[in-house]
Amino acid sequence: MSHRVLTGITTTGTLHLGNYVGAIRPAIAASRTPGVESFYFMADFHALIKCDEPDRIARSSRAIAATWLAAGLDPERVTFYRQSDIPEIPELTWLLTCVTAKGQMNRAHAYKAAVDAATAAGEEPDAHVTMGLFSYPVLMAADILMFNAHRVPVGKDQVQHIEMARDIAQRFNHLFGQGRELFTLPEAVVDAEMELLPGLDGRKMSKSYDNVIPLFEGGPKALQEAVARIVTDSKLPGEPKDPEGQALVTIYDAFATPEQRAAFRAALRGGLSWGEAKQQLVALIEGQIGPMRARYDALMADPAQLEAILQRGAEKARAIAVPFLKELRAAVGLRPYTASAATAVAKAEKAALPVFKQYREADGQFYFKLLSAGGELLLQSRGFEQGRDAGQWVARLKREGWVADAPVQREASDEVISAALAAFQAE
Amino acid sequence: MSHRVLTGITTTGTLHLGNYVGAIRPAIAASRTPGVESFYFMADFHALIKCDEPDRIARSSRAIAATWLAAGLDPERVTFYRQSDIPEIPELTWLLTCVTAKGQMNRAHAYKAAVDAATAAGEEPDAHVTMGLFSYPVLMAADILMFNAHRVPVGKDQVQHIEMARDIAQRFNHLFGQGRELFTLPEAVVDAEMELLPGLDGRKMSKSYDNVIPLFEGGPKALQEAVARIVTDSKLPGEPKDPEGQALVTIYDAFATPEQRAAFRAALRGGLSWGEAKQQLVALIEGQIGPMRARYDALMADPAQLEAILQRGAEKARAIAVPFLKELRAAVGLRPYTASAATAVAKAEKAALPVFKQYREADGQFYFKLLSAGGELLLQSRGFEQGRDAGQWVARLKREGWVADAPVQREASDEVISAALAAFQAE
Repeated sequence: MSHRVLTGITTTGTLHLGNYVGAIRPAIAASRTPGVESFYFMADFHALIKCDEPDRIARSSRAIAATWLAAGLDPERVTFYRQSDIPEIPELTWLLTCVTAKGQMNRAHAYKAAVDAATAAGEEPDAHVTMGLFSYPVLMAADILMFNAHRVPVGKDQVQHIEMARDIAQRFNHLFGQGRELFTLPEAVVDAEMELLPGLDGRKMSKSYDNVIPLFEGGPKALQEAVARIVTDSKLPGEPKDPEGQALVTIYDAFATPEQRAAFRAALRGGLSWGEAKQQLVALIEGQIGPMRARYDALMADPAQLEAILQRGAEKARAIAVPFLKELRAAVGLRPYTASAATAVAKAEKAALPVFKQYREADGQFYFKLLSAGGELLLQSRGFEQGRDAGQWVARLKREGWVADAPVQREASDEVISAALAAFQAE
Repeated sequence: MSHRVLTGITTTGTLHLGNYVGAIRPAIAASRTPGVESFYFMADFHALIKCDEPDRIARSSRAIAATWLAAGLDPERVTFYRQSDIPEIPELTWLLTCVTAKGQMNRAHAYKAAVDAATAAGEEPDAHVTMGLFSYPVLMAADILMFNAHRVPVGKDQVQHIEMARDIAQRFNHLFGQGRELFTLPEAVVDAEMELLPGLDGRKMSKSYDNVIPLFEGGPKALQEAVARIVTDSKLPGEPKDPEGQALVTIYDAFATPEQRAAFRAALRGGLSWGEAKQQLVALIEGQIGPMRARYDALMADPAQLEAILQRGAEKARAIAVPFLKELRAAVGLRPYTASAATAVAKAEKAALPVFKQYREADGQFYFKLLSAGGELLLQSRGFEQGRDAGQWVARLKREGWVADAPVQREASDEVISAALAAFQAE
């Protein structure tokens, strides 16, 4: 299996030039990395958590899908799908829900922030918390584990969720993997150098500051009008200008080659007027965004084509999800009745040796147990704070056989346990 | 739509004669009620909450499905399916999760019991709580609402869950129904006269007392041996016996006609020996259970037949679930991109009149608001403890127009609000 990278796309809100430079463009560039299998999904099940305006949900999803495709995401090269087109994801969510400790969700930053806000306002801690907000990390774990993604590019605020997905995956592997790693443990990739585009007023470009340059909406005219409103100093045409610290220049940089950057700075120092500079900026941006806007408009005008692209993406995603969920269902015991006999035989062959199982319990602690070839419990460990400690005891028991002070309870006779442990030293 | 009754079947544990008399037999009798559309499902997603033994999950599900069919559940007359064969159920679970207040789950009896137990043991409150246990009422709401069941027969301990399902349904209807009742509000039916069969020692028959009579396992021989162990008094053959208070007689009653009951009592008073009485009891039970056992054995020997029956049931269930989920998805905004235009037109036609919307917020209170024909907010009520109070204010505003002391905030000019309210009086 090649290296898999999975990126979730928020499907609400309006996109502006800052989103393009900070998120869309680098993600699309990353999708072209050789040797990487990329998954991009429209996180529309997540959108339901915070938004109960159905039309907005539908409209945003469509516009944002069109934006990513127009900006160059290649649905032939990557797997690009709507989360809500993959029924295996909510089903996996339930399987994971059953192995997730509630205590872990209690510690989620987003949940704690909602509780703190309510408490500060003198309300019940859970006054504004829906189960959607509370269980969101489980859905996110399903998004990731469904495709056994190795890496998940996220903002810093999402790192905790990836850690939770790892924990859930680990617990599931231990409970149901029979020694196999059913789930790959995903890693968060935090983009340290995420480019923050300044807005018209020099602060971070953000809808809430009302300082954005639209990405596609309003056409070249809206782009020109927005750029005209970028705040500069009041130097007159012909006066030398200091390019550093100017929002205009930072925005220019985001679209320019090193040569263009140097030339633009030189021109400003040489007295280029702000009006002329703004025209050059519009031309630079429009040169890159214009062709995308044409593709965007075409996609928005042809919902059938857009829908077909997403349906094709769902097919590709489900080609992975359907058989994998079948395997996971069998692992937890949800099997066709016709499978029972065959499975029993397979298991009997597999269980020809005693086996140590390591796992994590709902109390958050790590445990191990030794099972006989026939599946009977022989040793049961106490709980460990660290999974490593459990692992070291397993290794030691395998290596040395019975150890007098092992932190375990004996569930069978000394002979049976010694014989089982001897099997490991013979390996 | 006919009257729909939905019954969930626990898929773990072993069945004994007490389960048959107390649960299976009355449920199957109820399935034959005319004018009722019955849904019986194997709750195997629920089974995952408490059981992480995959083989037991698989084995129990198969044996319990075979038991219900052998006992007379007619899969042609009812819809009999495995919950886990209906992917629409976990998907609906997520939609409902997003509208469920976490505070409501905090108050669930099963969760509170787990917290109390942990606290009493000096542990963290959530030490042994999985998200499965915590979110279980949302899954149960999805089970019920997926088929718009009117009535759900449950034990007393489950009544709260039905109330939660009603609340969730109500909130979903208010948020997304646009005046339609997307979900039927289900009612709990608590069987007051549930028959409790005594065990061999006269206490309630229960695995935990080790006093059960097996239902099918072990054949007639096991039945005979169990009955032989029923505790009686030590009256000798020929001595008159008092039938009242004898477990043997109560068990006999559970399978006998009124005439048989009278005759059995008369014989005991006339000196029938306990040994002879036990033989009569075995014959009575075996007369009814024997043919079922034969069917059970045949079904267990033919997993393909059993699987086919469940698959057929899943088809019947999904014939309802698939189109209904599609409607629900559209209601929350998860729509094919091709649907957007058509939906916008349909909505514009629908919104030709102002509309009152009633709903429940995450704070547990009931609210209403008045929206203009175009969807703008005109009036916003304060929260009410009782949904009824919100409803009465809506009725009064519709009837009388503007009321000076109405507990609402005005979000538009007096003229606009008065005109909107006038539309209701014109109706």
